[in-house]
Amino acid sequence: MSRKVGIIGDGHVGSTVAHYIVANGFVDDLVLIDINEKKVNADAIDFEEAMPNLEYHTNIIVNDYSELKDADVIISALGNIGILDTPEAKGNRFAELPFNQRNVVDVANKIKESGFDGILIAITNPVDVITSLYQKFTGLPKEHVMGTGTLLDSARMKRAVAKKVGVDSRSVNGYNLGEHGNSQFTAWSTVDVLGHSIYDLVDEYNLDLDQLDKDARDGGFTVFSGKKYTSYGVATAAVRLMNVVLNNAMTVLPVSNYREEYGVYLSYPAIVGRNGIVKQLKLELSKEELDKLQSSAEYIKNKYEEVLNK
Amino acid sequence: MSRKVGIIGDGHVGSTVAHYIVANGFVDDLVLIDINEKKVNADAIDFEEAMPNLEYHTNIIVNDYSELKDADVIISALGNIGILDTPEAKGNRFAELPFNQRNVVDVANKIKESGFDGILIAITNPVDVITSLYQKFTGLPKEHVMGTGTLLDSARMKRAVAKKVGVDSRSVNGYNLGEHGNSQFTAWSTVDVLGHSIYDLVDEYNLDLDQLDKDARDGGFTVFSGKKYTSYGVATAAVRLMNVVLNNAMTVLPVSNYREEYGVYLSYPAIVGRNGIVKQLKLELSKEELDKLQSSAEYIKNKYEEVLNK
Amino acid sequence: MSRKVGIIGDGHVGSTVAHYIVANGFVDDLVLIDINEKKVNADAIDFEEAMPNLEYHTNIIVNDYSELKDADVIISALGNIGILDTPEAKGNRFAELPFNQRNVVDVANKIKESGFDGILIAITNPVDVITSLYQKFTGLPKEHVMGTGTLLDSARMKRAVAKKVGVDSRSVNGYNLGEHGNSQFTAWSTVDVLGHSIYDLVDEYNLDLDQLDKDARDGGFTVFSGKKYTSYGVATAAVRLMNVVLNNAMTVLPVSNYREEYGVYLSYPAIVGRNGIVKQLKLELSKEELDKLQSSAEYIKNKYEEVLNK
Amino acid sequence: MSRKVGIIGDGHVGSTVAHYIVANGFVDDLVLIDINEKKVNADAIDFEEAMPNLEYHTNIIVNDYSELKDADVIISALGNIGILDTPEAKGNRFAELPFNQRNVVDVANKIKESGFDGILIAITNPVDVITSLYQKFTGLPKEHVMGTGTLLDSARMKRAVAKKVGVDSRSVNGYNLGEHGNSQFTAWSTVDVLGHSIYDLVDEYNLDLDQLDKDARDGGFTVFSGKKYTSYGVATAAVRLMNVVLNNAMTVLPVSNYREEYGVYLSYPAIVGRNGIVKQLKLELSKEELDKLQSSAEYIKNKYEEVLNK
Repeated sequence: MSRKVGIIGDGHVGSTVAHYIVANGFVDDLVLIDINEKKVNADAIDFEEAMPNLEYHTNIIVNDYSELKDADVIISALGNIGILDTPEAKGNRFAELPFNQRNVVDVANKIKESGFDGILIAITNPVDVITSLYQKFTGLPKEHVMGTGTLLDSARMKRAVAKKVGVDSRSVNGYNLGEHGNSQFTAWSTVDVLGHSIYDLVDEYNLDLDQLDKDARDGGFTVFSGKKYTSYGVATAAVRLMNVVLNNAMTVLPVSNYREEYGVYLSYPAIVGRNGIVKQLKLELSKEELDKLQSSAEYIKNKYEEVLNK
Repeated sequence: MSRKVGIIGDGHVGSTVAHYIVANGFVDDLVLIDINEKKVNADAIDFEEAMPNLEYHTNIIVNDYSELKDADVIISALGNIGILDTPEAKGNRFAELPFNQRNVVDVANKIKESGFDGILIAITNPVDVITSLYQKFTGLPKEHVMGTGTLLDSARMKRAVAKKVGVDSRSVNGYNLGEHGNSQFTAWSTVDVLGHSIYDLVDEYNLDLDQLDKDARDGGFTVFSGKKYTSYGVATAAVRLMNVVLNNAMTVLPVSNYREEYGVYLSYPAIVGRNGIVKQLKLELSKEELDKLQSSAEYIKNKYEEVLNK
Repeated sequence: MSRKVGIIGDGHVGSTVAHYIVANGFVDDLVLIDINEKKVNADAIDFEEAMPNLEYHTNIIVNDYSELKDADVIISALGNIGILDTPEAKGNRFAELPFNQRNVVDVANKIKESGFDGILIAITNPVDVITSLYQKFTGLPKEHVMGTGTLLDSARMKRAVAKKVGVDSRSVNGYNLGEHGNSQFTAWSTVDVLGHSIYDLVDEYNLDLDQLDKDARDGGFTVFSGKKYTSYGVATAAVRLMNVVLNNAMTVLPVSNYREEYGVYLSYPAIVGRNGIVKQLKLELSKEELDKLQSSAEYIKNKYEEVLNK
Repeated sequence: MSRKVGIIGDGHVGSTVAHYIVANGFVDDLVLIDINEKKVNADAIDFEEAMPNLEYHTNIIVNDYSELKDADVIISALGNIGILDTPEAKGNRFAELPFNQRNVVDVANKIKESGFDGILIAITNPVDVITSLYQKFTGLPKEHVMGTGTLLDSARMKRAVAKKVGVDSRSVNGYNLGEHGNSQFTAWSTVDVLGHSIYDLVDEYNLDLDQLDKDARDGGFTVFSGKKYTSYGVATAAVRLMNVVLNNAMTVLPVSNYREEYGVYLSYPAIVGRNGIVKQLKLELSKEELDKLQSSAEYIKNKYEEVLNK
């Protein structure tokens, strides 16, 4: 009983996730895990020193995998974002893969050993491949493992559209699909705002959909180039997803989930609840969108197979 | 009308303050100011990309001092924490002074030019001297300028005591006084827990008050040595203080405020409301505590005069 | 500066609105007004006795119209819901009209005298006529006066649809339009869920749209018949609207706003911000929906004219 | 896993508790139980119709005792406050006893049958006797059953003192002890504000402690006489207590707990956590306070024995 959540990886994203949770009392027991013991202990103390000025109490547990046994949710936020800031990487999330891959397999094994049987939410990039790895190595049911995926990119698209039409980004509906990476795309056929399909507003608001699509896709790199990491957008997406799972809200969200027809994890809207991916949506996509999705799926699949064959 | 707050300095602390505010919708208009344009713009976008997954909307305004004119509160979070991580600094907050001093005078002048007449809350270290500088160079009434001071150190003391006696840190009462720095001290005569003065619990709980005092004073450096900055504790203290001002809550808090009898800003509990420091408390301190406070005040005063005479 | 809100009418709905605001610290100064002095004073004390166990402070001001001068928002929650529970009324919101009409004109005059120039949100029923009366007698610009209207009925529709398709009601999009009363209707052409227009899901989920429409329309009476008033749904809608105004969120919401082409206040989605109704949407309704809206508008218009001619 | 709470009794207090919980998403699964099926179903629908305008989801379950089996906390809010508004009752909470007693025994048996083994929090009056009854008839360990007791009266005292000295009620420390009823008293030796024992402020602030004591004791009846029930203060106290239990916060709170030395449930501060009453405080009360507490304990004991012998 009570809400128990683990966060693995206490870097920019993991610690922001933890702070958001602690500041709002979303969780009763919070397990923080990081290989950098000094950092994770420092954050734990920093959180405890915040508590006398906060309303709700959170029990912070540090670096104890056995505590994950009865956790409701684990959020994987590990990563090595520093690698992205090299000339070779040029911001491609796959530059993180070799580093993260090793750690993810190791972490997955430890999660498995702990006896954890809740829902695993991956933020770690490249998130679609990493989510697959987590599922494979934890042995959890496919529907109990998901990635934040394009929940963030959809938010970026909503922000970009909202600025153009002068409206709250919460009043834009629609999805970015596919890889949380360069092969993703905005499924414009799903986007509506001001009571209209966005296609009907192109003239009135002088919208360049290709540019907006690019803006959403590149959003992370704008933030990244400014501060060498991204944190608030993705942490907010992850915590929202966590709350939807804890509350059993059955909310439709575009997250990375295993789609049988593509044979990979990729972002596509699904109903999310306490049992993870409760039901997968079936959108009416255009031919062009289906092609983009197919090619995004293939891209992920190839990357995943490369990883497995290494 | 509506709540408007400015944050000057978008480093570890400033951005954590901003995130806590945005995630909770505490403020309607949030002005973020930093000399690093790329960083502050990146954070602004990152916050806006969080909003579609957040309940409340916050208008983010970047690097426009003129927007501070009608702000309710300005929070100064600028600093150069990196300087503390040098062999010479050894964690002494005064190592930041030469760097912060120049910037604070510059910022204070710009605040003055904006026509701002709200409440200024300084987090920037060494906070007692910096708060004095802000007051002097903005020309704001002394009671409209305050520093987070030992609101954080008191939280650290509460955490340390709470761990020892097995209780919520929110259930420990009492104050750290004086400089938010090495000359501060826990005024044990003000500390009670479990319905007793802490003095009465020393034997039962095997308390070493000198050690606990040291723990509270050194708390920041434990966190600092683990992550090279501190953020969550102090940001939480600052946002609590901001809310107390906005709500006109009249809460008793140990913050850095100008005490006539000492002729400096130092931390001592006061009633805080929309008009800033509404009333200063008069504690019954022991002779030893009064001496410590006197010597902490002199330390601050000397440092402040050094600054002015440079 | 700071958020200031007035609530006029401290019955079931008004006091629930106030509690929701106080419990969350949404507002700094809250003015409660009711002709039943004993009741409103009792609630004020009850709120103040809650505060030591709440995180945020709210200043409660009772029965002082002059305090509305600088309020950001006024929420009208006055009413005589008891009248609806008579055999003649049979739940028709217009049964409240004669009673509420007199009071609204009186209240509007007092609001005008106070010098208030913020945004007025009416919950009082029949809300479309009452909103008109408020606008006329306060002399406020039409776009500064609005009613919660079908923001509640749309929520009822979302709940009804969500139950049928097994999803979070937050994941249903669409609007109920027209009168917040018996002539309203669900504009099914605006409703989508699971990535589809609801029309496409009729067979799969065995949906009877007429029945769902009736369910949404009758929702209030189900609640009403169970407890002789409704409170939580409408109070939540009103507070959301208030926050959208305070935050200047520019959110699209179906609220009662003055539509020139119909010459009345009726519910139709609009962008809502600090300046009230910032922009009115233009939906692509079907012929049938347009007819229903026209006839709902005429119904409201007739009722309003009856009132003015009395 | 996940937070699950039951509320028994959906009158003014129970529904306010439920609303506060739902509006803030404190709980994942909320079981509402009331013998008035129409009322509790109406409230459940009303809450669900609020949700599309709320951020967090709560699963509402109605009138199913078997769902209490794995609940973390049960809050008993049943009562017949109407009885207090008769000439015979004159506001004495014991006027509710004959009515509530029968129902509590019945409810306790049903709770026992459900297999519930969490923490039971009673609000039902006369709360000290009722808490005893719950403990006896559920067979739960004494430390797993508690009453909101003087957590509310202490808040009333804090409000009264705060008004006199011009400070936030959250900045007043201290406890009302004994019966949540007419034999209770403020233990002034525990009260401090502005850094002083309240005794030291009597002259400066012209305090009449007997009058303040009476004000706190009579607080409920002021509210009661104005609206014929009390709700917000007590509901807030109950929800705070619930959160302290869920969070395992170990907070010191004056709640009704079983004190061996008095042989009854009465209000006295204790450390509260996930295991209920984790540790009982031992205050340094004055002789006069000890006498008052003794006589309050005897009053409760007599009433309890009367009940058992009937």
